Amino acid sequence: MMGGTIHGVGLGPGARDLMSVRADRLIRDARHIAYFRKKGRPGHARGIVEGMLHPDAVEFAMEYPVTTEIPLSDPRYNDLLSAFYADCAAHLDGLSAGGEDVVVLCEGDPFFYGSFMHLHSRLAGPVKIVPGITGMSGAWTASGAPIGWGDDVLTVLMATLPEEELVRRIHDSHALVVMKIGRNLPKLLRAVEAAGKQDSAWLVEYATMADQRIVPLAQATGAAPYFSILLVHGQGRRP
Amino acid sequence: MMGGTIHGVGLGPGARDLMSVRADRLIRDARHIAYFRKKGRPGHARGIVEGMLHPDAVEFAMEYPVTTEIPLSDPRYNDLLSAFYADCAAHLDGLSAGGEDVVVLCEGDPFFYGSFMHLHSRLAGPVKIVPGITGMSGAWTASGAPIGWGDDVLTVLMATLPEEELVRRIHDSHALVVMKIGRNLPKLLRAVEAAGKQDSAWLVEYATMADQRIVPLAQATGAAPYFSILLVHGQGRRP
Ligand SMILES: C[S@@+](CC[C@H](N)C(=O)[O-])C[C@H]1O[C@@H](n2cnc3c(N)ncnc32)[C@H](O)[C@@H]1O
Ligand SMILES: C[S@@+](CC[C@H](N)C(=O)[O-])C[C@H]1O[C@@H](n2cnc3c(N)ncnc32)[C@H](O)[C@@H]1O
Repeated sequence: MMGGTIHGVGLGPGARDLMSVRADRLIRDARHIAYFRKKGRPGHARGIVEGMLHPDAVEFAMEYPVTTEIPLSDPRYNDLLSAFYADCAAHLDGLSAGGEDVVVLCEGDPFFYGSFMHLHSRLAGPVKIVPGITGMSGAWTASGAPIGWGDDVLTVLMATLPEEELVRRIHDSHALVVMKIGRNLPKLLRAVEAAGKQDSAWLVEYATMADQRIVPLAQATGAAPYFSILLVHGQGRRP
Repeated sequence: MMGGTIHGVGLGPGARDLMSVRADRLIRDARHIAYFRKKGRPGHARGIVEGMLHPDAVEFAMEYPVTTEIPLSDPRYNDLLSAFYADCAAHLDGLSAGGEDVVVLCEGDPFFYGSFMHLHSRLAGPVKIVPGITGMSGAWTASGAPIGWGDDVLTVLMATLPEEELVRRIHDSHALVVMKIGRNLPKLLRAVEAAGKQDSAWLVEYATMADQRIVPLAQATGAAPYFSILLVHGQGRRP
């Protein structure tokens, strides 16, 4: 007997009508829907599909383990997360083994730095991926200008990198995207300044969502929300 | 009087149901549709929307100037292209001034190295952009593996760059996407080899389209089609 399919479905950057037609259909037809969320929260991915789900859909909320005791840098935190992903994957595989299809909701594109990747690498059952519009596409669209032209080099960085590495790579690229900013904003601000790009950088928060906000980086302070992306637009060759 | 809106609409990587719900609606309702194509060809973007257009839709095919006389490196080629984009933009602005909305079909995401950008920078009328799933998202989805994990650095390069620059940047990145390959394949093959990544690179042709093909780069030879992307997957930290 063939198992049911586990669909990792990209939701796009946030606005509901920016999901693909394929994603829209799979979500409306699904009898099993799974998504990550923080404990005690409705969940961002779940919010995007509110009102779309089939009346008989069974929901599986995968709640990140709360870690007030263990700091993020402790290796035990990694073990905790690993066990959590293994449990979630086992549950999804159980559904698949019983012949059920499952749709797993993924923010943006599932294979672009997404949490679903940690399930994907642990799943035994058949998996299909539906790509999505990335958060960064939402961000440069919101900014009103193209990210790269001609043979501009685009570098995508995570703000979790060490400061010196950020400086070097920001300096060395024409076009730039930085993700996972949050509490790393002060470090990122210093790195952008050291790389001499402070006057051409933009911070885009909640791209394509109701709270979308675009500010010149020079005006950003303190912390950035989870959904925020830094952009430097390339200025390459153009006819 | 407000002018009509010129919509730059991302079609995604090629499979029709990978366009967004917003794009799908705009295209089905449009009374004016514009798209680029090579002279004498039906046009790739036009092909994706075949069967979707409104019966009263008026089509504006923007045919790239044929240049058998002038080599691509000649500055006059640039002038020719520039005049072509200016003419197309003037036509679209004319429709907008007459109160008509227009949908311009864009492969992938309009603001990600797309031809529409050359119209956008010349348009006077009101413009709205609908982001799309990029060709590279289609490519890594087709490859069956995530492009980046944890704090992997992703570099997006055009194969039109000089060989030494390709070598340096390919060597210096964890995850890699190379676009605009075509006749640059032999140069790119040499650069990937010099950077020591020949055993981890994949060539994805026609991602998400009927002719989709994924080959280890070591098996690629000669020229690559216009729709081809080179990938090296990041292997970063994961719980
Ligand atoms: C774990 S990564 C997931 C990326 C996602 N898979 C994608 O394709 O965009 C989370 C990061 O994506 C970025 N992000 C995703 N969507 C965003 C949006 N709509 N606005 C701003 N940032 C976004 C933020 O930088 C956030 O820290
Ligand atoms: C002018 S750029 C346009 C990119 C487009 N705006 C996007 O978002 O993907 C053209 C290049 O995109 C890449 N490309 C776009 N779609 C593709 C697909 N479905 N399969 C392979 N390559 C693709 C190829 O490298 C091609 O040379």
